[in-house]
Amino acid sequence: MKKSRLFTPGPTPVPEEVLLELARPVGYHRSAEAKAILGEVVAGLQYVLQTQQPVYVLTSSGTGAMEAAVTNLVAAGEKVILGTAGRWGERWRGILRAYGAEVVAVEAAPGEAVTPERLAEALEQHSDAVAVFTTLCETSTGVGHDIAAFGQLLRHRRAVLVVDGISGIGAMECRMDAWGIDVLVTGSQKALMMPPGLAYIAVSPKGWQKIETTPVRNFYFDLRRYRKALADGPDTPFTPANTLIRAQRLALERLRREGIEQVWCRHERLARACRAAVQALGLELFARRPASALTVIRVPASLDGSAVLKKLEKDFGFKLADGQDTLKGKIWRLSHMGYVDPFDVLGAIAALELVLAQSGLSVALGAGVAAFQRAYAAE
Amino acid sequence: MKKSRLFTPGPTPVPEEVLLELARPVGYHRSAEAKAILGEVVAGLQYVLQTQQPVYVLTSSGTGAMEAAVTNLVAAGEKVILGTAGRWGERWRGILRAYGAEVVAVEAAPGEAVTPERLAEALEQHSDAVAVFTTLCETSTGVGHDIAAFGQLLRHRRAVLVVDGISGIGAMECRMDAWGIDVLVTGSQKALMMPPGLAYIAVSPKGWQKIETTPVRNFYFDLRRYRKALADGPDTPFTPANTLIRAQRLALERLRREGIEQVWCRHERLARACRAAVQALGLELFARRPASALTVIRVPASLDGSAVLKKLEKDFGFKLADGQDTLKGKIWRLSHMGYVDPFDVLGAIAALELVLAQSGLSVALGAGVAAFQRAYAAE
Repeated sequence: MKKSRLFTPGPTPVPEEVLLELARPVGYHRSAEAKAILGEVVAGLQYVLQTQQPVYVLTSSGTGAMEAAVTNLVAAGEKVILGTAGRWGERWRGILRAYGAEVVAVEAAPGEAVTPERLAEALEQHSDAVAVFTTLCETSTGVGHDIAAFGQLLRHRRAVLVVDGISGIGAMECRMDAWGIDVLVTGSQKALMMPPGLAYIAVSPKGWQKIETTPVRNFYFDLRRYRKALADGPDTPFTPANTLIRAQRLALERLRREGIEQVWCRHERLARACRAAVQALGLELFARRPASALTVIRVPASLDGSAVLKKLEKDFGFKLADGQDTLKGKIWRLSHMGYVDPFDVLGAIAALELVLAQSGLSVALGAGVAAFQRAYAAE
Repeated sequence: MKKSRLFTPGPTPVPEEVLLELARPVGYHRSAEAKAILGEVVAGLQYVLQTQQPVYVLTSSGTGAMEAAVTNLVAAGEKVILGTAGRWGERWRGILRAYGAEVVAVEAAPGEAVTPERLAEALEQHSDAVAVFTTLCETSTGVGHDIAAFGQLLRHRRAVLVVDGISGIGAMECRMDAWGIDVLVTGSQKALMMPPGLAYIAVSPKGWQKIETTPVRNFYFDLRRYRKALADGPDTPFTPANTLIRAQRLALERLRREGIEQVWCRHERLARACRAAVQALGLELFARRPASALTVIRVPASLDGSAVLKKLEKDFGFKLADGQDTLKGKIWRLSHMGYVDPFDVLGAIAALELVLAQSGLSVALGAGVAAFQRAYAAE
């Protein structure tokens, strides 16, 4: 017997009651019942994002909602500052370029975060920038950004703060309104404990001011249409993935029952324990400012990182994620966001220990597990 | 006891084994298994669309794939011909306008189809048009277009033929390659027997020639990215709704087992029987050139059409669709596409008879049902 266990930073495990909800017969998406469900999902997302603003539900990948942020906010030729620490920061750049924005990039080296100091510098040098784009949790390296500090920098400036929270929302502390985030994007398939297919986006009044003076260049991602449909309905402008919306309601109810601050604490605690385990095994953490959504481990120079992950999956059923692009084979990415409890992660640590020992690395079996237990119990 | 039965022209009923597949645990979307599944889905869609071209899988509503067609094919300022017979033709117009196309519209009155003659005329007058956009099945009125004849008109012209087949593909005969369709769009939630959330688009070599000379103005809907990911994978450029893809495979297998020509025949037979029932009840069909995906009935002047539908749902659980916009309350739309058998439709006819009688219309109970049976048995 070998079970399959998913530790990729998206998709993540989905609670059983959410899966079962997905198997219920499909209903009509314009019914009163569907509108009530959408209303509940929006309220649940407002709670999770910590915002009073409506949250728009898009049927798309997270990238679609990122594109919605760009096309609604930035006119061709306008200057924006990009705080990028990896692949998902680069995703912003790709979209911004496709829409003709002038991108001033503040780049962090792999494993480093963009600091508030460097962002402040860029804002001084480029006071004509209309927006700052950045990433809450850079899953390509495991870095988390200090979004609260970024928000402070922008509070009294014209530029809007746009945050890709796809991988962090529902795992890491993030308070849209209190922190001064103007556009916050997330997706269903990470800490919101759902399959992929839905993306979410909320906009502050300051964000809407910018949108209203920016020419429309899009149709499906035109946020005015979502605002109108939600206000008139609650409804969506286009046929939504309504079975996913229905299931998202249940996953959001879970987060509400637990309490969002407790959810953030739980992830922080798991992350701390996981980092302790990694270090007890003599391995190095890749992220200098680690996010609590996932733990990224530098592969020891003596090992073929991709081969270890393949063995981990083949022999024991644990699916971790490899590095991407130039980091392939160089890092292991272990997600502990969403529907994950301590014993799930503990199992992954134990399996990793076994595979590392079999791969010729000198590891004391149980050392990581014990460190995990100690750190988890510490408070 | 009252069962809920869905007869809206999207979403439509989903086979039980497809629903159950949706409840299976979520997997990683970049695995070899996920690639194999996507490959099978693409092959199944090629069969259903009757094309040798790759079919791209988008995580979006059908409108998203329509936008992909527009933004990839048409540069701002270019002239296109729009053959429109209702709301979904108007959807093309909305997207085309958002992208700055010059739209020459060939409009059919509600319930009428755009004829090949009128399209030929428009093509003569506007030989500089780069594309013709139209709709296979206009579900707002129940009209089906003669796409084969449209294809003939364009075969030796420069302009490409772009067809919204969202509501028709998998129900009505449509042969992308043989009929000379250059871009064909469809969606998961109609005759493909799935929940909403996925859209599909295929492009002919002639279509790709046009795309390759058109500036990219988009990111998420940039078809070059889908072409590359599919060729390199099979994969998608962005995290797809992978549980829906897995389930779509099962629904496509059903269509393949039955055989696509048999599927088209089945829908035609259901539609013929349904039309016979409507006429036997003394009601009038709304579409002059009816599609076989749904039957649209004109509401007798003495009745409040919306009230009848509400009663039909409240008393008997049958959910038909009202008219939209100016047709609200004026027509009833009964879908028989996808996972629908004769006795499903027969039940809907029987329930409609009961409600009509209760609403004061003079109907012979059973007259519609008997006509349905006779027409269905006729061959």
